[in-house]
Amino acid sequence: MKLYETKVAPNARRVRMFLAEKNVNLESIEIDLKGGGNLTKEFKSKNPFAKVPVLELDDGTIISESVAICRYFEELYPTPCLFGETALQKAQIEMWQRRAELGFLLPVGMAFQHCSGFFKDRMTPNQAWGEDCIEKAHDYLKLLENHLASNTYLAGDNFSIADITMLTTLDFAKVIDIRLSIEYENLSRWYDLVAGRESAQA
Amino acid sequence: MKLYETKVAPNARRVRMFLAEKNVNLESIEIDLKGGGNLTKEFKSKNPFAKVPVLELDDGTIISESVAICRYFEELYPTPCLFGETALQKAQIEMWQRRAELGFLLPVGMAFQHCSGFFKDRMTPNQAWGEDCIEKAHDYLKLLENHLASNTYLAGDNFSIADITMLTTLDFAKVIDIRLSIEYENLSRWYDLVAGRESAQA
Repeated sequence: MKLYETKVAPNARRVRMFLAEKNVNLESIEIDLKGGGNLTKEFKSKNPFAKVPVLELDDGTIISESVAICRYFEELYPTPCLFGETALQKAQIEMWQRRAELGFLLPVGMAFQHCSGFFKDRMTPNQAWGEDCIEKAHDYLKLLENHLASNTYLAGDNFSIADITMLTTLDFAKVIDIRLSIEYENLSRWYDLVAGRESAQA
Repeated sequence: MKLYETKVAPNARRVRMFLAEKNVNLESIEIDLKGGGNLTKEFKSKNPFAKVPVLELDDGTIISESVAICRYFEELYPTPCLFGETALQKAQIEMWQRRAELGFLLPVGMAFQHCSGFFKDRMTPNQAWGEDCIEKAHDYLKLLENHLASNTYLAGDNFSIADITMLTTLDFAKVIDIRLSIEYENLSRWYDLVAGRESAQA
């Protein structure tokens, strides 16, 4: 199996941290996102949607989308369980995963695209929209701060993929100057707990 | 159990179609999204993120996010299987579900928010961003048209939640004038197949 990824991208780290929790090592092939390595004919023959990361199985089968790759390894190596065990756990982890994605990962990603100029050779940055997204990301942090007053992890008592999504996005968000300030007491407690895991070094 | 939903919203229909496939009937409580029914203190005590749909279990436990609600019922009623059976099927359905969401549902939703004026009392519409999203949605349809040349459903041979996401979003997309034109031959074949299911009436 091979993993095509761009190491600095937050989705790549999300998958790496997940794989580290599962003790899975994969051959990694770096794609130069900034240089358009995802837009080549060869890469698009693997993923027509031109996104990284992409997992290529030994028979050539392709799995793209970070969470799809994680889910594949959750099925192959169920321990430690990161998507939940009971119906309710699975639903609540899915809920927090999606809240983290829709409320934070997406706004942070769009703010980066529209405010940093990183991809300005292939898109029309919309500064006003980027700034709107930064506000949305802050709104999410406030809601999460309240939630973590009475929850150890995003989905309750157990560490899950939702925490991986949140940690890796929060670390990436520094590039658009979103950081945990002193008023985020519960989030900071949670951050230290999750960033202290060995897998967070991945 | 109670389902708080806004019947005309595409996410609500997505959940209803999923539940119809599973033959599950729930008590439904209509939330007036346009009138701010999701912004009341009472509703936010159920879902601080102020989104519909929300599932309330008999013990008061809350599950929000459409796909989290669907996953809960997939676990309770595994037949018919809509999230996949093997590791590979689960990963491929997750991949197509996310491609449909990121490539089509999100752009269509944002184009609606930014171009229709529906929520202009509580947001700053950004027309240029909305129009950019309409283009992105069309780009996705072209990629999906190619994929459906050699696949019956989004994730291959089997109907799945990814098809539900795509159908309900495509029907909703008419409000921003995105429709299947004559050049989408494969998509039209797929549309007739999926829209012909009894659950599509939900």
